[in-house]
Amino acid sequence: MAVSNIRYGAGVTKEVGMDLQNMGAKNVCLMTDKNLSQLPPVQTVMDSFVKNGINFKVYDNVRVEPTDRSFMEAIEFARRGAFDAYVAMGGGSTIDTCKAANLYASSPDSDFLDYVNAPIGKGKPVTVPLKPLIAVPTTSGTGSETTGVAIFDYERLKVKTGIASRAIKPTLGLIDPLHTLYMPERVIANSGFDVLCHALESYTALPYHMRSPCPANPITRPAYQGGNPISDIWAVHALRIVAKYLKRAVRNPDDLEARSNMHLASAFAGIGFGNAGVHLCHGMSYPISGLVKTYKAKDYNVDHPLVPHGLSVVLTSPAVFTFTAQMSPEHHLEMAEILGADTRTARIPDAGPVLADTLRKFLFDLDVDDGLAAIGYSKADIPALVKGTLPQERVTKLAPRPQSEEDLSALFEASMKLY
Amino acid sequence: MAVSNIRYGAGVTKEVGMDLQNMGAKNVCLMTDKNLSQLPPVQTVMDSFVKNGINFKVYDNVRVEPTDRSFMEAIEFARRGAFDAYVAMGGGSTIDTCKAANLYASSPDSDFLDYVNAPIGKGKPVTVPLKPLIAVPTTSGTGSETTGVAIFDYERLKVKTGIASRAIKPTLGLIDPLHTLYMPERVIANSGFDVLCHALESYTALPYHMRSPCPANPITRPAYQGGNPISDIWAVHALRIVAKYLKRAVRNPDDLEARSNMHLASAFAGIGFGNAGVHLCHGMSYPISGLVKTYKAKDYNVDHPLVPHGLSVVLTSPAVFTFTAQMSPEHHLEMAEILGADTRTARIPDAGPVLADTLRKFLFDLDVDDGLAAIGYSKADIPALVKGTLPQERVTKLAPRPQSEEDLSALFEASMKLY
Ligand SMILES: NC(=O)c1ccc[n+]([C@@H]2O[C@H](COP(=O)([O-])OP(=O)(O)OC[C@H]3O[C@@H](n4cnc5c(N)ncnc54)[C@H](O)[C@@H]3O)[C@@H](O)[C@H]2O)c1
Ligand SMILES: NC(=O)c1ccc[n+]([C@@H]2O[C@H](COP(=O)([O-])OP(=O)(O)OC[C@H]3O[C@@H](n4cnc5c(N)ncnc54)[C@H](O)[C@@H]3O)[C@@H](O)[C@H]2O)c1
Ligand SMILES: [Fe+2]
Ligand SMILES: [Fe+2]
Repeated sequence: MAVSNIRYGAGVTKEVGMDLQNMGAKNVCLMTDKNLSQLPPVQTVMDSFVKNGINFKVYDNVRVEPTDRSFMEAIEFARRGAFDAYVAMGGGSTIDTCKAANLYASSPDSDFLDYVNAPIGKGKPVTVPLKPLIAVPTTSGTGSETTGVAIFDYERLKVKTGIASRAIKPTLGLIDPLHTLYMPERVIANSGFDVLCHALESYTALPYHMRSPCPANPITRPAYQGGNPISDIWAVHALRIVAKYLKRAVRNPDDLEARSNMHLASAFAGIGFGNAGVHLCHGMSYPISGLVKTYKAKDYNVDHPLVPHGLSVVLTSPAVFTFTAQMSPEHHLEMAEILGADTRTARIPDAGPVLADTLRKFLFDLDVDDGLAAIGYSKADIPALVKGTLPQERVTKLAPRPQSEEDLSALFEASMKLY
Repeated sequence: MAVSNIRYGAGVTKEVGMDLQNMGAKNVCLMTDKNLSQLPPVQTVMDSFVKNGINFKVYDNVRVEPTDRSFMEAIEFARRGAFDAYVAMGGGSTIDTCKAANLYASSPDSDFLDYVNAPIGKGKPVTVPLKPLIAVPTTSGTGSETTGVAIFDYERLKVKTGIASRAIKPTLGLIDPLHTLYMPERVIANSGFDVLCHALESYTALPYHMRSPCPANPITRPAYQGGNPISDIWAVHALRIVAKYLKRAVRNPDDLEARSNMHLASAFAGIGFGNAGVHLCHGMSYPISGLVKTYKAKDYNVDHPLVPHGLSVVLTSPAVFTFTAQMSPEHHLEMAEILGADTRTARIPDAGPVLADTLRKFLFDLDVDDGLAAIGYSKADIPALVKGTLPQERVTKLAPRPQSEEDLSALFEASMKLY
C-alpha cells in the first residue's frame, strides 16, 4: 500500500500559500467549480496565496460529474498556463479534473485515451513527472485527495470510466473540516454514501492473494490490489465513523464534530479503497450515472440532469451485499453490526439479508430515493445498464463473487425499489 | 501525516531485484549485519539481485545497536561506493545505519553532527535529494522501514540520540514474514516489546493540538507531531495484535501466523509512532542502553555488552504509565483491557495501577528480567540515568504529563524491580 500525504485540522487551508512557497511554486493554477467559487472556502485559499505572494490563475469551469469534454477544457487551460503547481479545491469532480489537467499538461504528446483505463482507453503507464498538486476537499465523500484515480463520463459511450495511476495521487491533501459547514443536506448525504460504499466494498473485495492475474513485476500491478489487512483497518474505521456521525452530519449543518469526523472518514476510506479497490456498487454505478435521463438532484446547484455519484453507488448496495455475503459472511455480519444491527442471533446464511435490511433502514432514515425506479429507470433500461457495467472490469473483477450478465441483470432489477 | 509505502506478503523479498530494476538502479549497496549475513534471508535478496542482473556490493559490518562510529564506517563505505540505491536487510540497527549512510553519502559536505537531533547535534533540515532505499525488516519491532528516524549511540556522551527527517524514510518497505522464522526467542520477544511501547506511547502521547511551540510554517513542524486520530488507529490496532499474537510468536518459532501478524504490527505501530511520536519509555531507554555495563543479552549473537532496545524501553513501562494515567485514564484503561485486564469494575483513579499490573504480568509471562536491577543498575546509577534522559527532550516533551528531574528519578527507582 502506498503513500498518502494528508494534513488535518480546522484552518489548515490557510497554510496552502506557505506549502506552495515551500515547494518553490511561482505560477499556480487554482481549480474549482462555479458554485464553490462563490463560497467562502475558495476565498480562504486565495487570501493565503496573496498573503504568501503566490501568483495564480483560477479555473472555475469544472463540471460537476465531469466528462471527457470538461476534462479536455481543463487540460487546455493547464497546457496554456504552463503552471508549476496546482491547487484543487472542491469535491471529487474538481480534484479529479485537476489530476487530469496536471497529467496531460505534463505529457503534451499524449492523446487523451492513452492514459484512460482499458478497455475504453489504452491504460498506458505514466512515466512523465507531474507538477505538485495540493487537494483541498470540500465534500466528505470521494477521498480523491488520497487516491490515484480520476473519474469522468465518456460521453460518446455514455459510460463513466477513469484514469488510474499512482502518479496522479495528490502530493498533499489538506483536510480542513471548516469547509464542510457549507455543504447542503443532499451533498453531505450523498457524499457520505460514497464513503459508506468505499468502506463496504473495500472490506469485502476479493482478498489480494486471490486476485489474478498476479503480475510478476510489481510495477505492473494495479493500484487496486484487492482486500488486505491494511485496507481492512481503514475500511472498518471509516465505517464506524459513518455509523456514528453520518446522520448527525446530514441533519444538522452546524454539527462541526459530526462533519469533521465525516471529513476524516472520507480520507480514511479513500486510503483503504485506494489500495484495495471497490467492486460492484461502483462498477454498476457508472452506467447509472452515465445514462441519466432527466433526474435533477436536489441541492446540487447545476444546470444538467445528474445522479450524484454517492447516490448512484448506494442504491444497489442492498442487492450487492446480499449477492456477495456468501463469500465472507462474517465480514458482512460485522459490517451490519457496526451499522447498528443486532447480530447476536444471526446465523451465517442470514448475513446477506441482515446487512441488506440494515442498509435499507439506514437509507430510509436518510430520505434516500426509493431505488432506481425513483431516479427514472425501469425494467426496460436493464440491458443498457448491464452493457454499461461490462467494461468496468477493472473494478467488477474485484468483487468476491464472479458475476454473469444474468447476475448483473438481477442485481439491477432487485435495486429498482428499496423499501 | 504521511503513510509509508510498504508491500506485505510471504515471499515479497524475491521481488527486490525487479523493484531496483524498475527504479533504474545499476550499482546497489546491500547492508546487513554479520549475524544475518550467514542466514538464508540475505541469500534470498542476493539471488534476486543476480536473477535481475543487479550489480551490488555487500556491507555487513552494521553494529547491533549502532554507534556514531559504526554509522561513520557505513557512511564511508557508501561515499566510496557511489551507489545509486540501497537495500537494508535486518533489524532496526541495519535499517537505521543504511538511512544514515544514504543521507551522508548524498550530502558529502555535511559534518556528522549537522543532521543529528538538537541539542546534541545541529538538527539541520535535509534539503539534498537521497537515493532510493528499500528496507527489508527481519525483526518485528522497530518499524524502521516506515519511519524517518535513525537511532545511534553517541559514544562520547554515552547516550543514544538520532537523526529525524522525513527525507530518510525508506522509499519502500518489503514486509516479508518468512524472515521472522529465523528470529531466536529473545529477539522476537524484545523486538515485540518495542512494538508494544510504540503503540502504548503513541496512543498516550500529548495530543497534537496541545503541543507547543506550534511552528507557523508546516515545513518546520517535527515528524513527531503528537497523538492524533490517525496515529490512534494504528496504535490500537498494533496493540490488539501484540495482545493476541506476541506470546505465541515468542513461544513457538514455527508459528507463522503469529509471527506474520507481529511483523505487520511492527509496521503498523511504526506508522503510528512515526507520525505521533513516543515519549517516556523511549526517552528513558536511551541512557539505559547507552550506559550498559556488562549485561549480555541472551540470543543476541554479538561480542559486546548490550541492552536490546525493546528490553530497554519496556522495563520502565509499568512506572511510566502509572505516572501518565491521570492525563487520559480512559485511554490507559482501554489499553489494559486490550492487553487482557478485566476493567469492568475499574474506576478512573485505578487506570494507572491496572495498566501497570497488566504489563507486569505480561512481562513476567514472557520471562523478562526483573527490572533495571536485573540488568546491572542500582540506585547509585539513577543520577546518571536522569542526566542521560534530559537531552531526550524531542521525545520526552511529548509525554502527556511534564516531568521534573525528581519525577524522572522516581520513575527509574520504581523500575528497579518489577515483580
Ligand atoms: N477519484 C476518486 O477516487 C473518486 C472516488 C469516488 C468518486 N469520484 C468522483 O467524484 C465525483 C463526485 O464528487 P463529490 O461527490 O465529491 O461531489 P462534486 O465534486 O461532484 O460536488 C457536488 C456538488 O457539491 C458542491 N459542493 C462541494 N463542496 C461544497 C461545500 N463545501 N459547500 C457547498 N457546496 C459544495 C459542488 O459545487 C457541486 O455542486 C464523481 O465524478 C465521482 O465519480 C472520484
Ligand atoms: N528507526 C526507528 O524508527 C527505530 C525505532 C525503534 C528502535 N530503533 C533502533 O533499532 C535498533 C534495534 O533494532 P532491532 O530491535 O530491530 O534489532 P537489531 O537490528 O539490533 O538486531 C538484533 C539482533 O537480531 C538479529 N536478527 C535480526 N533479525 C533476525 C532474524 N530474522 N533471524 C535471526 N536473527 C535476526 C541481528 O543479527 C541482531 O543480532 C536499536 O538501535 C533501536 O534504537 C529504531
Ligand atoms: Fe466512490
Ligand atoms: Fe523503539
